[in-house]
Amino acid sequence: MDKNLDIDNVDLKIISLLNEDAKTPYTEIAKKVYVSSGTVHVRMRKLEDMGIVKSATLNIDFSKLGYDISAYLGIYLEKSSLYDNVIEKLKEIAEVVNAYYTTGNYSIFAKIICKDTNHLRDVLNKIQKVDGIDRTETLIVLEESINRPIQLFEQDAK
Amino acid sequence: MDKNLDIDNVDLKIISLLNEDAKTPYTEIAKKVYVSSGTVHVRMRKLEDMGIVKSATLNIDFSKLGYDISAYLGIYLEKSSLYDNVIEKLKEIAEVVNAYYTTGNYSIFAKIICKDTNHLRDVLNKIQKVDGIDRTETLIVLEESINRPIQLFEQDAK
Amino acid sequence: MDKNLDIDNVDLKIISLLNEDAKTPYTEIAKKVYVSSGTVHVRMRKLEDMGIVKSATLNIDFSKLGYDISAYLGIYLEKSSLYDNVIEKLKEIAEVVNAYYTTGNYSIFAKIICKDTNHLRDVLNKIQKVDGIDRTETLIVLEESINRPIQLFEQDAK
Amino acid sequence: MDKNLDIDNVDLKIISLLNEDAKTPYTEIAKKVYVSSGTVHVRMRKLEDMGIVKSATLNIDFSKLGYDISAYLGIYLEKSSLYDNVIEKLKEIAEVVNAYYTTGNYSIFAKIICKDTNHLRDVLNKIQKVDGIDRTETLIVLEESINRPIQLFEQDAK
Amino acid sequence: MDKNLDIDNVDLKIISLLNEDAKTPYTEIAKKVYVSSGTVHVRMRKLEDMGIVKSATLNIDFSKLGYDISAYLGIYLEKSSLYDNVIEKLKEIAEVVNAYYTTGNYSIFAKIICKDTNHLRDVLNKIQKVDGIDRTETLIVLEESINRPIQLFEQDAK
Amino acid sequence: MDKNLDIDNVDLKIISLLNEDAKTPYTEIAKKVYVSSGTVHVRMRKLEDMGIVKSATLNIDFSKLGYDISAYLGIYLEKSSLYDNVIEKLKEIAEVVNAYYTTGNYSIFAKIICKDTNHLRDVLNKIQKVDGIDRTETLIVLEESINRPIQLFEQDAK
Amino acid sequence: MDKNLDIDNVDLKIISLLNEDAKTPYTEIAKKVYVSSGTVHVRMRKLEDMGIVKSATLNIDFSKLGYDISAYLGIYLEKSSLYDNVIEKLKEIAEVVNAYYTTGNYSIFAKIICKDTNHLRDVLNKIQKVDGIDRTETLIVLEESINRPIQLFEQDAK
Amino acid sequence: MDKNLDIDNVDLKIISLLNEDAKTPYTEIAKKVYVSSGTVHVRMRKLEDMGIVKSATLNIDFSKLGYDISAYLGIYLEKSSLYDNVIEKLKEIAEVVNAYYTTGNYSIFAKIICKDTNHLRDVLNKIQKVDGIDRTETLIVLEESINRPIQLFEQDAK
Repeated sequence: MDKNLDIDNVDLKIISLLNEDAKTPYTEIAKKVYVSSGTVHVRMRKLEDMGIVKSATLNIDFSKLGYDISAYLGIYLEKSSLYDNVIEKLKEIAEVVNAYYTTGNYSIFAKIICKDTNHLRDVLNKIQKVDGIDRTETLIVLEESINRPIQLFEQDAK
Repeated sequence: MDKNLDIDNVDLKIISLLNEDAKTPYTEIAKKVYVSSGTVHVRMRKLEDMGIVKSATLNIDFSKLGYDISAYLGIYLEKSSLYDNVIEKLKEIAEVVNAYYTTGNYSIFAKIICKDTNHLRDVLNKIQKVDGIDRTETLIVLEESINRPIQLFEQDAK
Repeated sequence: MDKNLDIDNVDLKIISLLNEDAKTPYTEIAKKVYVSSGTVHVRMRKLEDMGIVKSATLNIDFSKLGYDISAYLGIYLEKSSLYDNVIEKLKEIAEVVNAYYTTGNYSIFAKIICKDTNHLRDVLNKIQKVDGIDRTETLIVLEESINRPIQLFEQDAK
Repeated sequence: MDKNLDIDNVDLKIISLLNEDAKTPYTEIAKKVYVSSGTVHVRMRKLEDMGIVKSATLNIDFSKLGYDISAYLGIYLEKSSLYDNVIEKLKEIAEVVNAYYTTGNYSIFAKIICKDTNHLRDVLNKIQKVDGIDRTETLIVLEESINRPIQLFEQDAK
Repeated sequence: MDKNLDIDNVDLKIISLLNEDAKTPYTEIAKKVYVSSGTVHVRMRKLEDMGIVKSATLNIDFSKLGYDISAYLGIYLEKSSLYDNVIEKLKEIAEVVNAYYTTGNYSIFAKIICKDTNHLRDVLNKIQKVDGIDRTETLIVLEESINRPIQLFEQDAK
Repeated sequence: MDKNLDIDNVDLKIISLLNEDAKTPYTEIAKKVYVSSGTVHVRMRKLEDMGIVKSATLNIDFSKLGYDISAYLGIYLEKSSLYDNVIEKLKEIAEVVNAYYTTGNYSIFAKIICKDTNHLRDVLNKIQKVDGIDRTETLIVLEESINRPIQLFEQDAK
Repeated sequence: MDKNLDIDNVDLKIISLLNEDAKTPYTEIAKKVYVSSGTVHVRMRKLEDMGIVKSATLNIDFSKLGYDISAYLGIYLEKSSLYDNVIEKLKEIAEVVNAYYTTGNYSIFAKIICKDTNHLRDVLNKIQKVDGIDRTETLIVLEESINRPIQLFEQDAK
Repeated sequence: MDKNLDIDNVDLKIISLLNEDAKTPYTEIAKKVYVSSGTVHVRMRKLEDMGIVKSATLNIDFSKLGYDISAYLGIYLEKSSLYDNVIEKLKEIAEVVNAYYTTGNYSIFAKIICKDTNHLRDVLNKIQKVDGIDRTETLIVLEESINRPIQLFEQDAK
C-alpha cells in the first residue's frame, strides 16, 4: 500500500505518544523522539493533511455519569438488503454507539450503552420496533479487561 | 446513584462539546453554553477531579496506516475459570484492542485490528496458541456504519 | 440503593425465618432473633408497609394433583415488537405460569405446567396458534435438584 | 393416577383461594365455597396429610431488598455424569435458587438472583470455578410479564 | 397405569418370543414358557382384544430392493400452527415413512427412505415445495448400529 | 444395481400385500395379484432366498404396555472415534431401540422407549454414565403423525 | 456401477499423469505406463468418448491477478423452493464460482472470489439483494492447506 | 497492488480464452484478441514467468469413474493450535481434496470425494481417528448448480 511509504518511524513514535495523552506538549514529545520540536510540528501537520490524525477526543468515564451497562447486539433483519434503511433508523437512537456490517450470522452487529437494566429494556424496545428488524440477541458486557488503542510497536512477549 | 447529583446540565453540555473536538478553546465553549470561561475552567477541574474526564486521546485513522481489517472474536476457553490467565496472555498480543467478559456463549469476547488477511491469520495463530484457549470464532467487520460516543442529549426523532 | 438503608439484620432474620415457614408464631421468631415479640410485630408492619413482604402463599405439591410435567419454552416471535400482544394472549392460557423478556435468542422465555405429555401437546398447540408466534423450543424438566428462596445469609462453604 | 381420586372440586377451590392469600380466614373460605368452616378444616387436614399442601411461605419482593437481577443459566458440564457432584457444589452458592435436569442441550439449567451486574459477575465467577463445569450461558431477565401459580380453573378466553 | 394390571409375565414372554419371529408355532412357544399351547391361544386372543398385539408385518430388507439411503429430516414450518396441513401433504409423498411432533427446535421431525442421492434430491425437492414448509435439515444415516424392539426383559449388564 | 434385475412387479405386489398384514393367506394374495397361489409360494421362496423377506414380526402397541414416551437422542462423544465402543455399551441398555451413525452434528443418533418421565430420567442417567459419552440432547416425541413402511407404489397425489 | 467395467489400471494411470500436468507429451506418458504411445492415444480417445476426460483447463493463480479473498457462503432462502430461481440470479454475478444444493442447514452453499474486503462487501451486497435470499453467512478462507485432485491411487500411510 | 500494473486487457482476454479450453491453438486465440500469434506467445511466456499461469490440468468427470459423492466437512479440533499437525495427517487420506483455515466456527473446513455412502463412512472413520480431531459435521453435495472459474469480464446482467 503506497500510503505507507510516506510514514516513517518518527511519525509512528509521535502518534504513539499523543495516543497516550493528546495534551503532551510538542517540546516534550520532541525530546522523547530525539528531534527538534519544529520537526514535531511539521510531522503533525503532514499527518493531519494525510487524514491520519483526525482530531482529539476526551476520554470520558461514562460509568461515572451513570451509564453502567454496555452491550453488543446481534441484529437479524427481515432481509439483509434492508441494511441501509435500518442503519438510518438506528442513528436516531442515541444509545447506539457502534453499528457494523460483518461476516457471520448477524445482519448488523451493534453496541449500545445504557444506564441500567430498565434503560436497556427501553432501548431494546425501541430497536425492536424499527421496521425491518426481525429479532436481536443481546450480549451484556460484565467486565472490560482490555481497552487500548492498537499498539504500533509490539511490547516484549514474556 | 449519588454520584450523578453533582453533575448538572452545564457539565453535560461542556462534556458534549469537548467530546466532538477536545481542542475547542474554553472561550468558545463558554459562549456556546452561556457561562463565563472561568466557569468552564472550574467545571472541567471538577470533572477531572471526579474522574469523569480522564484524558484526551487522538482520533487516528488507522486504516490510513495500513490497518485495514478489524474483527470481533468469540473465544471459547477450555474452562471458563481460566479467564484471568488468558487475559494476561492476550495483553501481550499488540493487535488485541478490547477484551470483555460477557453474558452469552463465549468465554471472552475480543476485538483485534490487523493489516490484512495474512496478518489476521498470524494473529489468530498467536491467539490460538495461548494455553487455555479452545477455539475462536471470527466476525470480520466489512463496514462501520455508526461510530460515535454515547449522545448525552438525544437528537430529535423523525 | 437508598431503600436498603432502612433494613437491618433483625429485619433480614425475621424474613428468613418466615420464608421457611410463614406460620411460625411471632413469639417463636422473637426468641430466635433475640428481640421482644412486640419488635417482631413492628418490624413486620414496616416490611409490609415498604412492600417488601407482600403476602403469604401456600406451598403446594402440584405433582400430587396430577401435574407431572413442567417445561421451559423458548418462544420465537414473527417480530420482537409483538411482545406485548403475545403476552396478553399467553395470559389466557392457564398453564403458562411465567413469561419473561430476556437477553438471549428467544423473544419470550416462559414456563408451563402440564399433567402429562398429551396435555403438554395440547398446551403447545394452543400456544403455537397464538398470532405472532413463529415457533417454540421446549425444555422439559426431568428433575428439580434445587428449589429454594434466595438465601439472605450465605451458608458455610465446605 | 389414583392419587387424584380423593380430590374433589371443593378441595381444589379451597386450594385456589389459599393460593391467592394463605392468610384468608377459614370462615371466609367456607362462605365462598358454600361449605361449613368445619369442612374447610377437615379438608385442609386431609390435604396436608396427603402432602399436597406442604407449608405456607412469604411472598417477598426481593427487588426491594436490592436484588435487581435474575438470570437463567445454561450450564455445560465436562461430562453429564458429573451432575450430582456439581449440584452439591451449587447448593453452597446462596444465589442459586433453582437447578434442573432438563431435556435440551444444557447439562444443568439454573436460576440465580443477584443485586447488580457486579454481583452477577462474582456469582458467575464462583459458579465457573466449580469442578466439572465447562462453561455457562447467561440469559438475563429484563422483564417479568407473567408470574402466577398454575390456575386450577381456566379463566374465560376472550 | 391400570391397563398393565391384566398383563403378567406369561404374556410378556409370549410377546417377546413372537416379537423375534412371528411365525413361531404356538406349541413351541408353549414349551418355552412352560404353559399349555391352549394357554398361549387364550393369552394371544386377550392381547389382540386389548389391542396390544395388532398385526404381523414382514421384516423386509429394503436395501436389497435398491433403497440405500435413509435420512432424518428436521422440518421448519413458516408457522408451527400449519402442522396438520403439512402432515396431510407429507402423507402423499411415498418416501416419507415417519413424521413426528417433537420437543426441540424442529416443527416436524421425519424419516424418509430413498434409492440413492439423486432420489434423495428429488424427494427433498417435493418436500420443500409443500406449502408452509420453510426449510429442512437433512441427517443421512450412514450406518445402522442398533435396530431392535424394546426389550421387555433387560439383558445382563457386563 | 443388479440385485433389482430379478425382481418384477409381481414380487413387489406380493411384498406390499404381506407388508400390510403378514398373515394374509397366499390364496388371497394370489387372487389379488392375478397369479396362481403356486406362483406366490415360488416367489416368496425366492424373496426369502435373496434375503429380501427376512422374517415376520408382531406389530405391538407398546404404549398399551405402559411405554408412553419415545425420544430421539443426539449423543456427543468425547471423540468420534469412540463410536464402536460406545455402541457396544448402548446395546446393554434395553431401552435403546435404534442407534445410527449419521451425517450432521451428533456422533450417535439414537432412539429410546421409556415408560414415563422418571424412567426417561433413569435411562438418560445410564446413558450419560457410559464412558466416552460427553453429553446428550433429547427430543421427545409428543405425537406420531406418520408411521408406515416405504410405499413401493406411490399413491395418487391429490 | 457398470460404467467402471471398461476402465482399467492403464486408463487410471494415464489420467493421473495428465492430471498433474495436462501438457505432458504422450510419448513420455507411454514410457511411464509401460505401453506404446499408440495405446495412450487410443485410451485417451476412449476416455474422451466416454466423457470422462472433458477438456483441459489452465491452472491460474488468481491471487496474482489481485483476487486475494475467497469465501464460502451459506445462503438462507425465504423458501427452499426458490432454489432454481435464485441460482439463475447468482449465475449473473461473476464472482460466484460454485453453488451447491447440500444437506445441512443452508439452502444454497456457494463459493465466491473477490479482490479485497471492499469488493467482498460489494459482492455480498449484490447477493443479498437477489429476490428470495433471506440472509447469508460468510466463511472467509484465510489459508488453503490442501488443494489437489482426488488421488486415484492412495499414497503410503506413514 | 503493483503486481497488477503489468497486466493489461490483452493478457486477461488470453487467460479467459485458455481458461475455457487450454488446448485452443494460439493462432485462434490471436484472431479473437486481434493481435499476432507472436504476441500471444510473448504474453503467455510473461504470464508463466510471473507465475500467473501455472500449468494445465485435465477437466475430468470423476463421477464417471464411480466417485458419486462429494461432501464438505466442518472439522472441530481438540485445540485450534493442532491445525498444522492435523493437516499433515489429512494429506495422507487420498479422498481429502481441499482443506482450509477459515473464519467461522470450524477449525478446519475440508472437501472430500467418495464413491458411495459406504466409502463416505470409511473416509469419515479414518478422519475421525486422526489425533486431535474432536468431531466433524458433514454437508453432502446433492447438486452442483454452478462450477466455473472466476469470470474476469462480467457478463451482461439480464
